[in-house]
Amino acid sequence: MTTFMDVHHGMVGITAEQLKEAHNADLAIEGEEGVHFEKAWADPVSGTVYCLSEAPSAEAVQRIHARSGHPASEIHPVALSI
Amino acid sequence: MTTFMDVHHGMVGITAEQLKEAHNADLAIEGEEGVHFEKAWADPVSGTVYCLSEAPSAEAVQRIHARSGHPASEIHPVALSI
Repeated sequence: MTTFMDVHHGMVGITAEQLKEAHNADLAIEGEEGVHFEKAWADPVSGTVYCLSEAPSAEAVQRIHARSGHPASEIHPVALSI
Repeated sequence: MTTFMDVHHGMVGITAEQLKEAHNADLAIEGEEGVHFEKAWADPVSGTVYCLSEAPSAEAVQRIHARSGHPASEIHPVALSI
């Protein structure tokens, strides 16, 4: 398993409720790909959303996000953390 | 206080030790600006580093990072999290 940070652009105006709904939609199906989304942060002004996950691959992260209706713009494995 | 996610580009090949040194350099002076860096994640392959902080302003975050020798490429206030 690898830790990933993925980034969504273009989500200007996202609300707390929409972030929660999007995150819950991921959580509902993440197990099918062996992914776990741990945390998400959103900047409604720039429309940027960051998601932290543990997953077997970037492709698995993207498949869950895509099925939930919000494919990521970037997915980076973050091998290091502190 | 606001939560910020900042992003550094161009740190290709960063090691765990270098990430720790950079983070510790921030921690050593962060109090002077009322900033607290909570966590950092790095992708040595793409050279991307993400830092999560609590701070009074994006400018305060940048002043600490700049004084530590690693100014951020982007700093986003993340008003929402889940």
